[in-house]
Amino acid sequence: MIFYYAPRTVSVASHITLNEAAADYELRRLDFSMTEQRSDDYLRVNPKGRVPALVTDQGILTETPAILAYVAQSYPAARLAPLDDPFIFAKMQEFNAYLCATVHVAHAHKIRGSRWVDDDNAIKAMQAKVPQTMGECFALIDKEMFAGPWVMGSDYSICDPYLFTVENWLEGDGVDIDDFPRIAEHNQRMREREAVKPVLELHGL
Amino acid sequence: MIFYYAPRTVSVASHITLNEAAADYELRRLDFSMTEQRSDDYLRVNPKGRVPALVTDQGILTETPAILAYVAQSYPAARLAPLDDPFIFAKMQEFNAYLCATVHVAHAHKIRGSRWVDDDNAIKAMQAKVPQTMGECFALIDKEMFAGPWVMGSDYSICDPYLFTVENWLEGDGVDIDDFPRIAEHNQRMREREAVKPVLELHGL
Repeated sequence: MIFYYAPRTVSVASHITLNEAAADYELRRLDFSMTEQRSDDYLRVNPKGRVPALVTDQGILTETPAILAYVAQSYPAARLAPLDDPFIFAKMQEFNAYLCATVHVAHAHKIRGSRWVDDDNAIKAMQAKVPQTMGECFALIDKEMFAGPWVMGSDYSICDPYLFTVENWLEGDGVDIDDFPRIAEHNQRMREREAVKPVLELHGL
Repeated sequence: MIFYYAPRTVSVASHITLNEAAADYELRRLDFSMTEQRSDDYLRVNPKGRVPALVTDQGILTETPAILAYVAQSYPAARLAPLDDPFIFAKMQEFNAYLCATVHVAHAHKIRGSRWVDDDNAIKAMQAKVPQTMGECFALIDKEMFAGPWVMGSDYSICDPYLFTVENWLEGDGVDIDDFPRIAEHNQRMREREAVKPVLELHGL
């Protein structure tokens, strides 16, 4: 497989998960400062111009929740997801859908505001609310969703590298992770995993 | 099961899918004009204050992509998803993740701008761009994602009611569905399904 990524983006989640599965893959780094994600070459891989993208023998996959579940299902021995119970599997997907459609979107209003407005003052208004929206998201995660010690409880799952990825955006978004001690501990717990260590180094996390 | 919904919202997708599966469920309607989704009673069902929510014997599920996949996996005889191939399953989830994290989010900037800004001018700037962003999303869906006659090709799947739900928002978002003839035909094709007809009536679609 070939894995297209950019440092510190949401591709961190899939990168960790590929390592957890001991999957065989090649890395291809995109430089967002050169907008390589909008190059003709990359748009042929992912017409959305986003990362991550995973090139497999069967075709190309994008969207973090889909890639994470694909790796978990393709490498069942790694036990990265509850594959035998549709309800527990759905609870896992529910968490990942919240990260992708609500939390990542809240974060994106800081530096990707031009996706939704053309007006500079509106972009500034969006940026101003990011600490509040991201703080509210993590308050809800902490209170209602995070079972501990891992997201789903005693078993590590593909929710954990995804949450970890977003946790690392909090400081830049004006939220103190120590306001959520269980989440801060989760971040440290993730950093101790062997599959995570090389990702931290490569992404400068 | 108990299914919480509000007319014409994204809950249409799950509603159709429950019908396609011939699932046994009770309907509970929420009145958004009375902000019933923020009532104490409903926040005990879904602390996010959104629809849909599906109460099952095992617990409560939220987030459309998770509910759709749960119904497909729980009622395999209805053949609503490619359950035997992790890659094709992931392609389906990729499509649904795009609807949930990009297309629905673009749409939400029309009437839910206060999620991301507090400034009235910024809310107007968001609304102004919705026809462009929704048009770009559907151009990409039409060109790169929609196989036809159903989203995934010859087989109907849980992508279809989800896409149908969002198609019905286009007119209000200032996009002419007839700019995308294959999508307009998909909308008509959906309306002919027996599982869809009662949903059209109940939601006033």
